Parts: sequence; structure tokens; C-alpha cells
Amino acid sequence: MQAPPSPGYSLIIRARYQNQVGMLGQITSIIGAVGGDIASIDIVESGGGFVTRDFTVHVRDTDHGFKCVEAVRQIPGLRILNVSDRVFLLHLGGTLEITPRTPVKTRDDLMMVYMPGVARVARAIQEERDKVFTLTIRRNLVGVVTDGSAVVGLGNIGPEAALPVMEGKAVLFKEFAGVDAFPICLNTQRPDEIAAAIKAISPIFGAIDLEGIAEPGCFEVERQVQQDLDIPVFHGSRHGTAALVLAALINTCRLTGKPLESVRVVVSGSGPAATVCAQLLLSAGIAQVVVLDLEGIVHTARPGLDSDKQWLAEHTNPENRTGDIREALRGADVFVGVTGGQRVEADDVRMMGRDPVIFALANDDSMVIPDELEGVARVVATARSDMPNQMNNVICVPGFFRGLLDARARGITTGMELAAARTIADLVDEHELHEEYIVPSVFDKRVGAAVARAVASEAEGAGLAQQPARPSQP
Amino acid sequence: MQAPPSPGYSLIIRARYQNQVGMLGQITSIIGAVGGDIASIDIVESGGGFVTRDFTVHVRDTDHGFKCVEAVRQIPGLRILNVSDRVFLLHLGGTLEITPRTPVKTRDDLMMVYMPGVARVARAIQEERDKVFTLTIRRNLVGVVTDGSAVVGLGNIGPEAALPVMEGKAVLFKEFAGVDAFPICLNTQRPDEIAAAIKAISPIFGAIDLEGIAEPGCFEVERQVQQDLDIPVFHGSRHGTAALVLAALINTCRLTGKPLESVRVVVSGSGPAATVCAQLLLSAGIAQVVVLDLEGIVHTARPGLDSDKQWLAEHTNPENRTGDIREALRGADVFVGVTGGQRVEADDVRMMGRDPVIFALANDDSMVIPDELEGVARVVATARSDMPNQMNNVICVPGFFRGLLDARARGITTGMELAAARTIADLVDEHELHEEYIVPSVFDKRVGAAVARAVASEAEGAGLAQQPARPSQP
Repeated sequence: MQAPPSPGYSLIIRARYQNQVGMLGQITSIIGAVGGDIASIDIVESGGGFVTRDFTVHVRDTDHGFKCVEAVRQIPGLRILNVSDRVFLLHLGGTLEITPRTPVKTRDDLMMVYMPGVARVARAIQEERDKVFTLTIRRNLVGVVTDGSAVVGLGNIGPEAALPVMEGKAVLFKEFAGVDAFPICLNTQRPDEIAAAIKAISPIFGAIDLEGIAEPGCFEVERQVQQDLDIPVFHGSRHGTAALVLAALINTCRLTGKPLESVRVVVSGSGPAATVCAQLLLSAGIAQVVVLDLEGIVHTARPGLDSDKQWLAEHTNPENRTGDIREALRGADVFVGVTGGQRVEADDVRMMGRDPVIFALANDDSMVIPDELEGVARVVATARSDMPNQMNNVICVPGFFRGLLDARARGITTGMELAAARTIADLVDEHELHEEYIVPSVFDKRVGAAVARAVASEAEGAGLAQQPARPSQP
Repeated sequence: MQAPPSPGYSLIIRARYQNQVGMLGQITSIIGAVGGDIASIDIVESGGGFVTRDFTVHVRDTDHGFKCVEAVRQIPGLRILNVSDRVFLLHLGGTLEITPRTPVKTRDDLMMVYMPGVARVARAIQEERDKVFTLTIRRNLVGVVTDGSAVVGLGNIGPEAALPVMEGKAVLFKEFAGVDAFPICLNTQRPDEIAAAIKAISPIFGAIDLEGIAEPGCFEVERQVQQDLDIPVFHGSRHGTAALVLAALINTCRLTGKPLESVRVVVSGSGPAATVCAQLLLSAGIAQVVVLDLEGIVHTARPGLDSDKQWLAEHTNPENRTGDIREALRGADVFVGVTGGQRVEADDVRMMGRDPVIFALANDDSMVIPDELEGVARVVATARSDMPNQMNNVICVPGFFRGLLDARARGITTGMELAAARTIADLVDEHELHEEYIVPSVFDKRVGAAVARAVASEAEGAGLAQQPARPSQP
């Protein structure tokens, strides 16, 4: 099975043809026959016996889009005037804007927003530096920083190509939690230079979200930056994904009746995302965690472990299992596939214990083919937006940063991640909880604010809040 | 004479008092008596024989504001409930916002703005890096970068205190030319570190406006950055001010009938702004430029000249004058006072030639007392917004960057500055031209677009345009 046609790849085919009975039916049939999903048909122009129409068609991927266009082109008496890609149209000129919060229509406005009025604001901050957190955008601003070396699903694409992805993240910050976020794509992939750049630009940000920085450099960056700055700096999507996985796990335990602490979890993936996820599950009291990478189960006797894997080997896999995915899954309750995780087939799932649960976090079908697991796994959650149980870390990340900003937190703690996970899990109540509804929807308006409150409250409890948590800024 | 009360410092005094005849008159009289300028009076609450009112009062400065509040406080039977400062209220939480250009209300939106749709946009840029200028915010984005070491009128206030000022600049970029601008305040004042940070963050910007970086470091930064980047990087307000001075000079020549090339100009100021200004006047063909700093006239025999001053000594002052301001002004046509310039008294102006012209660019009365020059100078232009002929570089800077972005210029040239100056001058037509109207208003809607067209066209002519100039992005 392939990914279905989606709005993530949607074409507008503009075609002109003789306006005769049956023509429209022929066109739509042909698009349907090659698997295109027609979203809408609009008339552009009509007259002189001819008609021009826009066909908006969802397709699967680039090849499929090409196939659809070519199929339409073959129709006798029809001419394709233009093909445009709705996603490209939407990204034209970028997806963000820097807008004034106050208009400058009069001389009075000018004198307040800029000179001479602003001079007093500057002086006030000079006298008491902390006021930068109330009198400037720093109060509500997150820097989304990448070097473009390991952008999810795309790899090392460089800073320019990473920019539209980071813009998209910033859009989600604003839409889902009212956080102003600005993308910073760095022209260097050296950890010391990345760290230096982040420290240099830090005075304007209330927190920094690292995104898509490859290992092992990413750890070096975090280490160097965190020790010098008193704002939170961490890989938001890794920690947000970990919290979301824990939330989903809590809710599947509610479904299956298994106590959280006793479930056996296999985390499959190489790289920092898997490590962060395994760490959080351990912190949540789950004793039986096994980490699996492309070389098999991580265990203490395995040769060539890097320091990260060494840590995992020492803290997971208490039964000291060795071997491949089958060995890892034997009797397991939950499979969590993160970046670089392995594919799970129905036969693998059959090795698991009662009520097997599969979380496959790749944005495509590289980890599981959901249809094949029907009737085999009790719960299947994926990153796909066209399936139930979408595990999208936007459920967690914007609200998490909202909470950090609200409390002016100095850093993040595992306690915040645990609190975020429990809060997300709690938002699905007893009546809603179901095999196909284990995490709230991305569009559930309550999530951002609830996660923010949980994180801010944890920050206060841990003595990391530099101000009393305010109500969320909308 | 002091600066008059202005909206740049405006208080809201909230007072509660017994609602009896004559009380309101007493309050307004007292505020008037101490020199406060009442902008508005609003009722907050009334009942039980009492009334609470907000008095919005423009004052001159902090001491004057204090005096006004204390005068009101002395009124018997009146209680001040609160005093707030409108400028601080306006700057609360900053003056900018990062807003999505497209809403994310549905799953379809999400799939187009972010994954999976955005992946194709990223791939397209990865394959052809130049597409970052069409498919991202880079097309319209200027970084306003400072280290807070020499913020106009404020000095070395550091990056945090500089932030509200840079936010204000960014607001003006958007309001006056539709340019998205983002403030970057750096946590270092070392030129090599500033240059490294700018290079690191450059992939997201179409141009970089350096602001408020002290000399001589600022030149080192420009040198290091310009040689590595193919986007314009320069001190916008210095070059914008220079172009504006030239525009004003062109128009005073139209008034006085003197040929531009033959006017004698004294540029008074120490620091890079004076240098940039003198250089542009020379480029415009003005042979008789004399530069004056706090030590007197710059001439080749003066000991201790730095390399900048040495250059000026060799290229200006063809008569090799020496001495103080009087000597500089003897027979001069125009005095231009920029940052760090000296004060000009009426007696100094009397040393000048026929129709003396004074441009005093400090934002206060440190250079001239306009009243004293009445009847002595033919034209007086200042930076003050409460006087005619306001020389505010916002007349030039946003449109200048708009033009650079529209043409995707690789850098700036003197030709662009000359073209901007001529364009600004031309916007004042024969019927409008007057001693009190030598440059267009900041709020003249035509200015930004006209300057942009002139700059973009020059970029094309100079072979520096990396794309055909598009119509301005609103």
C-alpha cells in the first residue's frame, strides 16, 4: 500500500477544451482511473464554445502527479494551459510575516514606537536588564534554530532548504500556542560555531528550540549553550515526541488495564530521538525498556557502542536480551518506532504479548503498513494525518514552550516532560478513550493551554521559574 | 528653550475626587501651570458623589512628568490612583509579532504548511538554492543587527536595552515599505564575533542593516562580512541619513539658486556617520566639503588622525583650512551637524555666506536652538518631529532596503545613494518647495516606493541585480 493522495501534494491543472456533453465526465474519470483525488473543479472562463477549468487534484507524490497530468493531457481536444502546485503557491514568499503590534499612522505613533519615546524604554532596560522580558518581544519569542544537517525525513539539506520547514514550525507555534517563533538557519555545521552563534543571538529570545541538528554535534551544542545561557535551549521536537509517546502509552494502559510501570516497551530507532524517548520512559517508572537499532538490540556486551548507546545499554534491557527485532518484541507490550526505526510486520507483532500496541512515528509507511496490522495489533498510532491516532508532536511542543515562556523558566526538567505527558493523556476522558483515540487531536484547542499550565507549574515547583506564571499570552 | 511636551513622553494620570463644580477646571489649570500638555480626559467611573478620570498629559521629560504628577497630587480632596506611561504601555510585550501568512485551521492546511507538503518545497530549494529567494521569507526579510554599542542618542547600552529600539526600526520598515525586518541584538561587541554571527545567520536574510555598532569595530565588521556574503550588508541609517542630507541639499539649492557643485558645506561630527555623509557629498560633485570634529577642522597637517580622518583630510578641505567652527563656517553655504557634531549659535551662522542653511541632525537641541536662528539662517532642518523640515532617515531607509530586496541586489553602491537622494528631492515639486518644506514628510506614501524603484533600477544598471526588479511587495 502506498500513501494515499493528500493535500500535502495537491495540483491545480488548468485545462481548456470544447464545451461538449460528456467531456467533463471523461476528464474526471481519467483522473480517477490513475488514482488522483479530485478536491474541486472551478470554472475559469467560458465562451465561444470553449471552457477553461481548474481541476484541483490530490496526488500521492511527484511521480503520481506527473502521471495524472499526462493522463489528462492525452484527452483529445483538450489543452493543458498550466499546472500549479498548491503547496508551492502557499510557500511563495514564505509563510511568516513580521508585523507591527501597533500602527504608525501619525507623528504621535512614531514618537512612541521609535524616537524619542523608545529611548526611555531602552534606558529602563539598561537600568534593570530583566525588564527586557516585559518591555520587548523577548517575553514571547522562541528561536527555532537549525543547521539543516538532519531535518526530519529529509536529512542533511543545508540551511536554505531547511528554512521553509522551520517557517512551518514557527507557524505552528503561533497557531497552536500563541508563541512568536522565528527561524534561524545557520550557515555552519560545526558544533562550536553553532553554539557561538546561538549565544550571540540569545539576548532577544525567551527560549531556543533546536531542530534538525545531527548527532553527535547536537549534544555538544546543547552542552556548550546550556551552561552559558539562563534560558531553555533544547531539541523541542525530540522532547515533545517523547512526552507524546508517554502520553499515548499512559492511555493505552488505561485501555488494556496494564499498569504503566510493568509494560515492556521496545524503542526502535537510532539517534538522539530514540535516546530521549527511552530516557523519558525510564523516568516514568517503566523498568522494561529495550532499545533496538539497525544492528539489533542494544546491550552492554555489544561492541562499538558510542557513549550514548553505552548509557542506554547500562540503563535499559534489564534482562540483557540480544538479537534482532523478533527477540526484542518477544512478549513486549509496546513497540515505539522513532527516527531510523525498523519496519514491523504482522508476524513480528504476533511475537508480542496480549494487546500489542504499535507506535510508528515516521511520516510515511516505512515502519508499518497499518492495514496489515488490523486485527493483529490492538492499537496502532502513526504520524500520518490520514489515519486515527496521529502522533504529531505539535500536540505537545508549542504548549510546552508557551509554559516555559509564561514562567520564564531557566531550563527544562524531566518533571516538565512527565507533567506534559500526563496532561495530554488526561485530555482524553473515559468516554472518549478508544483504540482509535488515544491522544487528543492536533486541533483540540484545550491542549496548548493545558500543556503550558502543567509546564509552568512544574517550573515553579522546581525553582526554575524566574517569574510567577502568568496566564497564557494569546 | 527646552524640548516641548510630546507624545514621546505621555502620562496617564488616573485621579479620583469629589465630583464638584470647579474641580476639573482646577486640575487642568494646575497641569497647564506646570507646563503639561493635556491630550485627553476620559471618565473611568462615576458615582456616589465621586468621579475617577484619566488625564493623558504630554510632558517634556522624566523630571517634568514627576513635577506634573506632584502638582496634581497636591490638590485637596483628590487621590491619584495610578500613573502610567503610554510609551511603556505601548512597548509592553514588544512592538512586533511573528504572524503566519496563512491560517492553519484544518488538517489540509497543516499538510501544506508543514509536513508532508513542505518537504517538496525544501527539496526544490536543495536542488536549486536560489529558490530560497522565492519560496521563503528570505525574499522580503532584512535583519536589523546591532551589538548595542553605539545606539543613536543612547551610547553603549548593550543588546537587551537596544532591543526595543531595533524593534521600533523593524516596525518602520514594515509600515513605510512593506519590508519584513527582524531585530538581532548580539551578545558580543567583538568585531570578529559579530562578523561570525552575521555570517552564520545570513541564509535567512535578503539584506542586513547594521545599526548602532561603534567605530572602529563597525568598519571591521562590514569588511569581514561583505567579502563573504552576496547580500547587501551596511549601516542603513548612516547611508540613509547621508542620502537624505543630499536630498535636502539639492532642494535648498533649488531654493537659493546656487549650483549644487559649487556650494561650500561644513560637515560637523565625529564618527562614521559624518564620514559617510562627507563621502556622499563628494560623490555628488560637491568640491568644497570641510569636516569638523570636536578638535576642529580636519586637515592633512593635523596630528593623530586615524585612517578614516586621514582619508577625509586628503579628500576634503581643498583650501586646507585649519581652526575652529568659525573658521570652518566662514563663507560656507551649508552646515550639516551629524552625530557628535558641534553646537551652532546665531553668531556662527553670521560667518556664513548668503542664504545660510543649517541641517542639525541630533534628536534634541544639542546642535541648534531653532528659535535663535530665525531670521539668521534661511533654512533650518532638524531631526525634531515638532519642527518643519524633519530630517528623519525613515524617509529613506525602508524604501532603500525595499529596492535592494526587489532587485535581489548583491550589495550597495554610491550610485544607489545618489539616485535615492535625487528621487527624494524630486518628490517636493516647485509649488511645494519652501524654506519650511525641503524634504517630503515621513508620512508621504509615495516616498518608499519611489526610493525603492530608484535603488532597484540602479542595481540593475550596475549589474548587481540578481533578478529583474519586481513591483514592490506591499
